[in-house]
Amino acid sequence: MNSNQEVIRRLSRYRNVMRKMKALGLIKVFSDNLADAVGVSPSLVRKDFSMFNLTGNKRGGYRIDDLVSKLNVLLGKDKKQKIIIVGCGKLGQALMNHNGFPRVGIRVVAGFDSDPEVLNSEAPIPILHIKKIREFIEENQIRVATLTVPEPAAQGMVDTLKKTCVKGVINFSPVSLKSSEDFLVHNMNIEQEIENLFYNIHFAETTVVKVQ
Amino acid sequence: MNSNQEVIRRLSRYRNVMRKMKALGLIKVFSDNLADAVGVSPSLVRKDFSMFNLTGNKRGGYRIDDLVSKLNVLLGKDKKQKIIIVGCGKLGQALMNHNGFPRVGIRVVAGFDSDPEVLNSEAPIPILHIKKIREFIEENQIRVATLTVPEPAAQGMVDTLKKTCVKGVINFSPVSLKSSEDFLVHNMNIEQEIENLFYNIHFAETTVVKVQ
Repeated sequence: MNSNQEVIRRLSRYRNVMRKMKALGLIKVFSDNLADAVGVSPSLVRKDFSMFNLTGNKRGGYRIDDLVSKLNVLLGKDKKQKIIIVGCGKLGQALMNHNGFPRVGIRVVAGFDSDPEVLNSEAPIPILHIKKIREFIEENQIRVATLTVPEPAAQGMVDTLKKTCVKGVINFSPVSLKSSEDFLVHNMNIEQEIENLFYNIHFAETTVVKVQ
Repeated sequence: MNSNQEVIRRLSRYRNVMRKMKALGLIKVFSDNLADAVGVSPSLVRKDFSMFNLTGNKRGGYRIDDLVSKLNVLLGKDKKQKIIIVGCGKLGQALMNHNGFPRVGIRVVAGFDSDPEVLNSEAPIPILHIKKIREFIEENQIRVATLTVPEPAAQGMVDTLKKTCVKGVINFSPVSLKSSEDFLVHNMNIEQEIENLFYNIHFAETTVVKVQ
């Protein structure tokens, strides 16, 4: 992850903490609060904010409402976050109905597949034939897609998406795809993560070697 | 991620690359090959291997078969990797049938839920009542679970699992859970990843500020 992405991730976490603080009735937040919640130093919080001209002061703190709405603009969160699901097997269909999305303002607008058995253009979230994907993307100005296609189809699908206005994908297929300058790929390889967890547990237990 | 985890992740990636090289009929591998495939320096590959007494030489390379089987032992990959799915909503059920698992030797042995409608003790992968989870874990010596439960249930479930022989979870619920010394948590928050992707795209486009 580059430093830019790290800053964005922190800003997003500050924002999420503040939304929860606001739900508790709090009005102001101090850099120390955010530092504690996110696990960074208070000076880093202040540095992140000053970098984006988000104002407050060490003693008086920041107004949560102001800061959240400024962060929303900065993060593009004020815009609707429409996504499409490419590949509507079991995992793709689970994502289509994932109840964590509406809560954070993400809306799945369509799924795409080539299997006639899963196509359903009348469903609340339609599943359309993959050959319609480019037209749909341009008409609906889609920027982000999730890829839940079989491994052999993944790279070809990315090549197709790169020719549209899609600017990034979350890739669940079991192949690591690479980001390019104007197309971001975030790989979420579930089996790789589970394997790594087993390895870490195995290492912690055997402690054959100590890595410095 | 600490340095230990980074080394483990690299070893796992070396191993996966070599399995694919072997499938192509190759017999030997050079540190330069692995460096290219994984995107690190050849000297780091050699350092990683020498740290674990994996022998080879710069000119002669390493025998793929030897190296893969040594890595398998080192990574605990020679043991069966049984997991359970805690929370059998749509995402949990998609994971139960995820076809990426068998290929890498991960076997889902049971799911758990409290909803009578999804329980099915006769299925090839049974879905059992959550009250049976501790007994099942101990009988089957389960070490790893995936958590696909609603947010309010997540921490309580981790507390329950900590009292068993489970040593780590992959958490898909939309709350960040923390690892402790003897219990590893890997958070995979899908909506957070999608949000971050939107933010990164937004940033790349607006370039209001340049972060150094």
